[in-house]
Amino acid sequence: MVEVLAKAAGETGGGVTRLAHPLRLESGGSLDAVEVAYQTYGRLNADRSNAILICHALTLDQHVSGVYPVSGKPGWWTRLVGPGRVLDTDRWFVICSNVIGGCMGSTGPSSVDPRTGRPYGLSFPVITIADMVHAQALLVEALGVTRLFAVVGGSMGGMQVLEWARSYPERLVSAICLASAARHSAQNIAFHEVGRQAIMADPDWRGGDYQIAGVRPEKGLAVARMAAHITYLSEPALQRKFGRELQRDGLSWGFDADFQVESYLRHQGASFVDRFDANAYLYITRAMDYFDLAAPHGGQLAPAFKRASEVRFCVLSFTSDWLYPTAESRHVVRALNAVGARVSFVEVESDKGHDAFLLDEPVMNAALTGFLAATAEATNL
Amino acid sequence: MVEVLAKAAGETGGGVTRLAHPLRLESGGSLDAVEVAYQTYGRLNADRSNAILICHALTLDQHVSGVYPVSGKPGWWTRLVGPGRVLDTDRWFVICSNVIGGCMGSTGPSSVDPRTGRPYGLSFPVITIADMVHAQALLVEALGVTRLFAVVGGSMGGMQVLEWARSYPERLVSAICLASAARHSAQNIAFHEVGRQAIMADPDWRGGDYQIAGVRPEKGLAVARMAAHITYLSEPALQRKFGRELQRDGLSWGFDADFQVESYLRHQGASFVDRFDANAYLYITRAMDYFDLAAPHGGQLAPAFKRASEVRFCVLSFTSDWLYPTAESRHVVRALNAVGARVSFVEVESDKGHDAFLLDEPVMNAALTGFLAATAEATNL
Repeated sequence: MVEVLAKAAGETGGGVTRLAHPLRLESGGSLDAVEVAYQTYGRLNADRSNAILICHALTLDQHVSGVYPVSGKPGWWTRLVGPGRVLDTDRWFVICSNVIGGCMGSTGPSSVDPRTGRPYGLSFPVITIADMVHAQALLVEALGVTRLFAVVGGSMGGMQVLEWARSYPERLVSAICLASAARHSAQNIAFHEVGRQAIMADPDWRGGDYQIAGVRPEKGLAVARMAAHITYLSEPALQRKFGRELQRDGLSWGFDADFQVESYLRHQGASFVDRFDANAYLYITRAMDYFDLAAPHGGQLAPAFKRASEVRFCVLSFTSDWLYPTAESRHVVRALNAVGARVSFVEVESDKGHDAFLLDEPVMNAALTGFLAATAEATNL
Repeated sequence: MVEVLAKAAGETGGGVTRLAHPLRLESGGSLDAVEVAYQTYGRLNADRSNAILICHALTLDQHVSGVYPVSGKPGWWTRLVGPGRVLDTDRWFVICSNVIGGCMGSTGPSSVDPRTGRPYGLSFPVITIADMVHAQALLVEALGVTRLFAVVGGSMGGMQVLEWARSYPERLVSAICLASAARHSAQNIAFHEVGRQAIMADPDWRGGDYQIAGVRPEKGLAVARMAAHITYLSEPALQRKFGRELQRDGLSWGFDADFQVESYLRHQGASFVDRFDANAYLYITRAMDYFDLAAPHGGQLAPAFKRASEVRFCVLSFTSDWLYPTAESRHVVRALNAVGARVSFVEVESDKGHDAFLLDEPVMNAALTGFLAATAEATNL
């Protein structure tokens, strides 16, 4: 199946771009020698009008389609991205880049600091969603695209979409924000803080300098992932999938993984540490916690979108998503309405929780297909 | 205030009872030299008809009223237990014992194993809610009480209440189950497993033998508590209490506790390790995960209560409790209805989440007061 999907992904490209100048950061500092790793799918047309940028979520990366290099499995959105699919790569030139602060090729805390010749670790500057988007904008420019037909993303990807609409509305025809929010809530921050504390409690974290020490805080990172993973699923989905089903006949009367849900979570933790960097987890969760588009406007969200009234928006939430519930999407929609932007809002009935945006959700697929077609028609693309 | 409350708690007693025989456990094994630590408030009347047993939640203990010895603060349910209060100690003889497996005086994994002269650690047998209740029943007998006017508890205490109704219905006039469930859901188990993994990931846990090594897995236990604590509060309560309020002016652009909710959670973790034992946390969470009253009856709950039709029940849930949501209480109520038991069911409108049963909830207070009065009147007590 992997091979078939890889072929089906059509013409793909990608690489690593080094930004020409230091990246100025929201914190006030700057970052030298920034590299942005990216993948492309499909072909940019002659008038450069068919580019769609996908923004990835916390632990995902640029490998949206084709084969994911670490595991050999299909890319995380292969279901949506490919010839004839929702994001049809016969028609669209799809770009996705690894966020800065990440660990899949873009500059992040595990990169070598050119000033010291050693991995940054905690000397890496705290970056924000706006910094991620700024780096993406420079990449998109470097690829010869001046205006994106759409920017699309779910979860943290949706935050980047909203940030694009705030920072670069003139470069967007449309923006699609899935299962996301314009700010991190107290509960969102709380779950992230648990994960960070789990990582930092691991003695192998070594104050962030584990690479130099040749170790990895695997146990702490696994616990962080386990806690986070629960928030990605709805209670009914967990109950339907696992209930109280046991791994073996009968209870162990001990602390083995008796229940299938325990075994599943342990597996989620264990497999995550093979593909993700602990410091990147700290930095990216921090960027999400700091995200609050309304903050510079005294808590009012609409002013953040005041330049985005010409962008066409699609905002989509899932009924059982308790991480970024529909109320957060409605808040975004009201702000967009307030500035007179065109907004399609869809709340998809699903019991799969936050991760529904990664799964086969026919209503979501239909909404995205319809939105893209209508936008293309309205803008003569 | 502590002193006033302590005095107001009225006549108090307590101590530690050693069970006369080994305690037979649900696992098939048995536990020698079991001690049960308890507190009493008020006075047992001449015909021994005014005893109320309170069952405590996961991390609480027998100090329901008066002064809590570890912190010097008021006992955890001082608001409800005392002269003239909901559980009026001028009228009722209130008993509460530390669960076995716990760490406040009853035999648990930190107790010395009489066979080895060393702390049990992980050689302590896995115990269940039924085992806890069995030990309580022996304590109640030892105190000269053959029939309880009521058994009351919230959260894990509510599980014990339901277990009392299953195992010893003839010893109960009434049973009050607050914010609880007849089984642990997949999500409940998942959150507990995160906590256990956090503890076991701490190298100072030493495979459970940390006492012998003279260390404590404080970081792991703190992370476990932080994760659990989020589940005790509702999202709106966290948002109202903390929102995105900062600890100081401006962001730290680092990994300090920038947000008040982070600082609050860190404090919850840090203060918890001062009063709780990591292995006890493992054992008690395991007991809760194993709890499923319907399991021996092919998934049918009603048969578990078939001997309890004469017990008067009060079942109470809170609208914003997502740990043990109202649906779980309704499930209990339906099973009790099916066996013809009298049930008062109250869903209290509250946005405070699971911990509401520990807080000042006037509707809960009124429901309990009314239920106790009606039961006393109906049974001529």
